[in-house]
Amino acid sequence: MQVTLAIDCMGGDHGPTVTLPAARNFLRADSSACVLLVGRGEAIASEAERLAGDFPGRARFVAASEVIAMDDSPAMAMRVKKDSSMRVAIDRVKSGEAQAAVSAGNTGALMAISRFVLKTLPGIDRPAIATILPARTGRTYMLDLGANVDCSPEHLLQFGIMGAMLVSVLEQKDTPSVGLLNIGEEEIKGNGVVKQAAELLRSSGLNFFGNVEGNDVFKGTTDVVVCDGFVGNAVLKASEGLAQMLAGRLREELTRNWYTKFVAMLALPVLRRIKRNNDPRRYNGAALLGLRGVVVKSHGSADVFAYEQALMRAAEAARHDLVKRISAQMDDYLARVGAEIKGAA
Amino acid sequence: MQVTLAIDCMGGDHGPTVTLPAARNFLRADSSACVLLVGRGEAIASEAERLAGDFPGRARFVAASEVIAMDDSPAMAMRVKKDSSMRVAIDRVKSGEAQAAVSAGNTGALMAISRFVLKTLPGIDRPAIATILPARTGRTYMLDLGANVDCSPEHLLQFGIMGAMLVSVLEQKDTPSVGLLNIGEEEIKGNGVVKQAAELLRSSGLNFFGNVEGNDVFKGTTDVVVCDGFVGNAVLKASEGLAQMLAGRLREELTRNWYTKFVAMLALPVLRRIKRNNDPRRYNGAALLGLRGVVVKSHGSADVFAYEQALMRAAEAARHDLVKRISAQMDDYLARVGAEIKGAA
Repeated sequence: MQVTLAIDCMGGDHGPTVTLPAARNFLRADSSACVLLVGRGEAIASEAERLAGDFPGRARFVAASEVIAMDDSPAMAMRVKKDSSMRVAIDRVKSGEAQAAVSAGNTGALMAISRFVLKTLPGIDRPAIATILPARTGRTYMLDLGANVDCSPEHLLQFGIMGAMLVSVLEQKDTPSVGLLNIGEEEIKGNGVVKQAAELLRSSGLNFFGNVEGNDVFKGTTDVVVCDGFVGNAVLKASEGLAQMLAGRLREELTRNWYTKFVAMLALPVLRRIKRNNDPRRYNGAALLGLRGVVVKSHGSADVFAYEQALMRAAEAARHDLVKRISAQMDDYLARVGAEIKGAA
Repeated sequence: MQVTLAIDCMGGDHGPTVTLPAARNFLRADSSACVLLVGRGEAIASEAERLAGDFPGRARFVAASEVIAMDDSPAMAMRVKKDSSMRVAIDRVKSGEAQAAVSAGNTGALMAISRFVLKTLPGIDRPAIATILPARTGRTYMLDLGANVDCSPEHLLQFGIMGAMLVSVLEQKDTPSVGLLNIGEEEIKGNGVVKQAAELLRSSGLNFFGNVEGNDVFKGTTDVVVCDGFVGNAVLKASEGLAQMLAGRLREELTRNWYTKFVAMLALPVLRRIKRNNDPRRYNGAALLGLRGVVVKSHGSADVFAYEQALMRAAEAARHDLVKRISAQMDDYLARVGAEIKGAA
């Protein structure tokens, strides 16, 4: 099925040196995909033309005169840089020329512009950011990751609906299970918001598992883990920090002396396998959910391989009608609640 | 310096089969320590007598007729089981016979009983639970870990003071650095509570580093990381989950075939070293802070080695006057605020 991605080629730490080769690999791998390569002419036009030549009818250069910096405020990005590559890419989703936008740029700006240009779906108060994490069995989708710091029970319910639909689209699961992140000690089981959110999720029509704890994220207890953006961000970054620390210690131990270096050499195939299976680059591509359009955020430091994963994820979400599915599930929920209210009256 | 610990020998998944051998090892290693071995006569009296014989004047059996179960509610533990081993151990701290209590039992019950019997220090609204985590450089002390789900800025400030004093005592650092856990994106930098807490910490007289993110916990950016109990609990448990998942995958890869098994054999010294250096048992012993007495919580599933660490930690905290230090730092802060109010008036 044909799909067109609008790529913010300027975004991220490496800009076009990563986004353009990733676009080339993506076009090579996905023969029914098209790309709009958005950016400043002097930076990308010549390579974009080359891509257009190599993939006739499937790649096109789209000019944008400005670039949003990593430290631009969302307000600055919205009001001042109206012809930024990020903005132009999202505009193309709005106009229907593209079915999804991908950017490795400033998250706050991407969220603000997406929300302003595309608007949220009916029944969704705030968009959320969802990522994929490796788990002992399969993968876990966690949201929100920092877009929403103070969440109401209704927000958490909406995250549950959006997350479940994301899994249904990306993993082809019919009724993904949803867990609500909470803490373990009985007497202090969660604050008021979480308790109320559990009630809402229980009667939402979703496959609600109940409360889960931090360790369940990596156990793979549920397909989706819902939490507020502060907790999600802290958990995600702490996990990255821990993984880096452990990898560093392994490296240290394996380079300690001639014997450990010899062992490291023999262990190379094993280490490579572990690295490949746990490679965070494979999980690159966080979805901005709840919008009237597909927007995928790549890690700012993504390399070509990682950026290609984000492109593939965006194409898949667009092809499987992520937005329509979230919208339909939300309508279903609202109808259910409406019927309940009518029934109660 | 002499110190006496009151040990709840019945608490934890393994009860006396862990607590008593750990007490023996502890007495052997620390020649000026004494222990009160609290528990039911039929379960521990004979072994306690043997210890009293082996370490004359340093071990004594103290009878308690009840045991708090892992699923007892704090209310049940407080009101019904008034002669529980946990309660009797804490009573001995209150009476001054012991300088610290250690238990591997039900956290909620331990917190409730400690608070009821020992009371909080002046200026401390709520006790907090602090643990030690391994970091790339040194160790990080994180609090709160689940005792307080909804925190005010003042609570976070108090956690900062308590955490800093814990580090000063256990690591002999004069001015430990304190970080406030926050999230990274600029435009959404924390909620109102965290922003106000930062203001309070900045003018607290502590060595306040500023905001830190989840990955800083394992980088060791600051000695102390302060957060509310919901976030702390989620981060701690997610980290445990991730470490378990990675260890599981390593095991899987190393037992895949004869070659990997051969590599694993050669790598044994390296793996042992890594395991030893990252052994969570070494970090066992979470301090309940802000009370008029030292209480240390061991992990429920602790083995003899892990439980001994908790005992050592409790002895050190008591010897270095943890309670007095927290109290003095709090007085200092209150005087500072009082002077400011006077100055402003």
